[in-house]
Amino acid sequence: MKRPTILVLGAGYGGLMTVVNLQKSLGADEADVILINKNDYHYESTWLHEAAAGTLAPEQVRYDIASVINSNKVQFVKAEVTGIDVKNKNVTTNIGSHTYDYLVIALGFEGETFGIPGLDKYALSIANVKAARQIRDHMEYQFATWSLEEEKDDSRLTIVVGGAGFTGIEYLGELGNRVPELCKEYDVPAEKVRILCVEAAPMVLPGFDPELVEYAVRQLESKGIEFSIGTPVVEATPEGVKIKKGEDEFEFIKAGTVVWAAGVRGNRMIEESGIENMRARVKVDKDLRAPGFEDVFVIGDCSLMINEAINRPYPPTAQIAMQQGDMCANNIIALIQGKQTAEFVPDLKGSVCSLGDSDAIGVVFDKKITGTKASFMKKMIDNRALFMVGGVGLTIKKGKFNFLK
Amino acid sequence: MKRPTILVLGAGYGGLMTVVNLQKSLGADEADVILINKNDYHYESTWLHEAAAGTLAPEQVRYDIASVINSNKVQFVKAEVTGIDVKNKNVTTNIGSHTYDYLVIALGFEGETFGIPGLDKYALSIANVKAARQIRDHMEYQFATWSLEEEKDDSRLTIVVGGAGFTGIEYLGELGNRVPELCKEYDVPAEKVRILCVEAAPMVLPGFDPELVEYAVRQLESKGIEFSIGTPVVEATPEGVKIKKGEDEFEFIKAGTVVWAAGVRGNRMIEESGIENMRARVKVDKDLRAPGFEDVFVIGDCSLMINEAINRPYPPTAQIAMQQGDMCANNIIALIQGKQTAEFVPDLKGSVCSLGDSDAIGVVFDKKITGTKASFMKKMIDNRALFMVGGVGLTIKKGKFNFLK
Repeated sequence: MKRPTILVLGAGYGGLMTVVNLQKSLGADEADVILINKNDYHYESTWLHEAAAGTLAPEQVRYDIASVINSNKVQFVKAEVTGIDVKNKNVTTNIGSHTYDYLVIALGFEGETFGIPGLDKYALSIANVKAARQIRDHMEYQFATWSLEEEKDDSRLTIVVGGAGFTGIEYLGELGNRVPELCKEYDVPAEKVRILCVEAAPMVLPGFDPELVEYAVRQLESKGIEFSIGTPVVEATPEGVKIKKGEDEFEFIKAGTVVWAAGVRGNRMIEESGIENMRARVKVDKDLRAPGFEDVFVIGDCSLMINEAINRPYPPTAQIAMQQGDMCANNIIALIQGKQTAEFVPDLKGSVCSLGDSDAIGVVFDKKITGTKASFMKKMIDNRALFMVGGVGLTIKKGKFNFLK
Repeated sequence: MKRPTILVLGAGYGGLMTVVNLQKSLGADEADVILINKNDYHYESTWLHEAAAGTLAPEQVRYDIASVINSNKVQFVKAEVTGIDVKNKNVTTNIGSHTYDYLVIALGFEGETFGIPGLDKYALSIANVKAARQIRDHMEYQFATWSLEEEKDDSRLTIVVGGAGFTGIEYLGELGNRVPELCKEYDVPAEKVRILCVEAAPMVLPGFDPELVEYAVRQLESKGIEFSIGTPVVEATPEGVKIKKGEDEFEFIKAGTVVWAAGVRGNRMIEESGIENMRARVKVDKDLRAPGFEDVFVIGDCSLMINEAINRPYPPTAQIAMQQGDMCANNIIALIQGKQTAEFVPDLKGSVCSLGDSDAIGVVFDKKITGTKASFMKKMIDNRALFMVGGVGLTIKKGKFNFLK
């Protein structure tokens, strides 16, 4: 009997966790496992806001895939997926193509700009480690230029953050820490800097406990961050953004830096794959398979699952992606061994939203926490993700242990 | 008898050395000493190429003026000089005006673009600590953007350095060290980066020993740096520079970063002061006074002195500026005390041109040196400048002691 080929697309939280479980649970002769990823490194996408603000070095946010896979059991291919053909069981990349017996689609999120004109071109996006790094360098270059130029253009020091969801708020938290440092480094008076968060929805952090949200807004406002809630961005230009303040009332905010953090969708490859999807996300069966395809699993941000308790989708989080990866590997092994697949039920341990280096809000094991305690928990969650993929060694190398600040 | 007012303009090597000697040699009631400087810090202008390349933090290149002056003897005014009127003994600044009995003009250099179109606007210049910082951030932003963009514009990774004089070569030396680091940090293949030095004159480092120059060019070329000598830049645009390769032969070099390091001149204030000058430099009398003005001294890069041994001007160096500052203070004290001024004779201890962190060329006490030995001497010279102004404390704080690399 020919050994089955398991093809895993993407080395984010979901894909990497799948592979780590497969290499632990499968013998070397039970299956051919191939992992395809665009880069030869994994990055912690939940830490990108820190790299974008400049509070964490981009190097610290990523690690080599080679350091966590067992090359006797998993073949790693550095390539970009260019097409998924589930009818013919074929995946093409920029350097070749692969057939499979089992496919795991774990390609992660892409930014969503909702067709708002100019955003694609003129706004920066915390999409990946390279994009985060560019945001940091862009902001520093604006500060350096303001400091040097004779006729000072204060709008260089205006930072507009589009979106008051998880990413937007965590990024604002880091900016609250980083901007005072930047002012000192670049000889910029603090009062010249303006940080403005613009959100179309009528609330900050939808889904979060209102009392905690109020705490978060108060803390960020105390650092000089302004909020403009219920205010859609209607256009971005090279000079800034136009926002809609009322029925027929618009305002143009001149800004040297515009960061769009207001929406994610699944990977565009899914839309051309022949699998039914909504904004490139697949409403998966209970065992994580794509409806109608018994050999295709979709996990992580490309998957969509309904939390029946509240009849709303689970948010796309690292926590769920990792649990899905673990379960997905188990289910593939079950299929190979002719057993039944199991049902995936998220085990929600809680959620913590960082507000900068030593502050956060969250609900952990049903308990509300804020401040340094929440910040400590956030770092423990970050470290746990490293530990699950790469053990103690990786955790020590890339983990966050600056608790005492 | 009224105490005389000594007004010192500029806190570079020359001005600061003048003030340090004055506060050491004068009693508190002998004169009013006022130091005027645009910034409240001094920067080591001979280290700016390091800040521009990103091999030394901008913070490390500057120190607070307050940390080296005795406020009982010297009044420091943070202001920008806007006019010098030597006939009426008056200096105006952006915040007021000052009369003087003795004036020391030590305003340093400005970049010279020789009227080449576009250079002022599109080329960066290693003119001061803020400009150096901007160059670093600009280059990093180009690398970050190349790394992120889908359709890669390789010209972002082309760096053109205009000028193969002291500053140009020292900056290229730092780039030779920094660019491989940048490639690693920003996931850029080294072969994509192009560093090109364009020089109108027919030689590199004019005035330097030819054998040492050959060593320098060989070392820089071995790091992938290209030289185009005898090739004037005729225009700069937002995309790059046009160079003249032959009688009617031109080439356009598309480049994301253009740094102009090919010429310096004195401060523009001198041109409007009524003092005879050439490109804002004053050919001073032997005791450092401006011809025809017995109460005005000009030192540092705004002064011009002929080395009669070779009938050519002394180069504008920190070494000479500091010696002039010291002598200028002595001569002012002599005038106050009714004594004769002394003649200034530069004491040339040698000259070392850095080629990056652990390499250099130089002639010190008439001996040619290269490599780590020359690099060590260069760092000792840098430390000596700190020591002369601020003693052991400042030297330990800002000095260069990374000899063992």
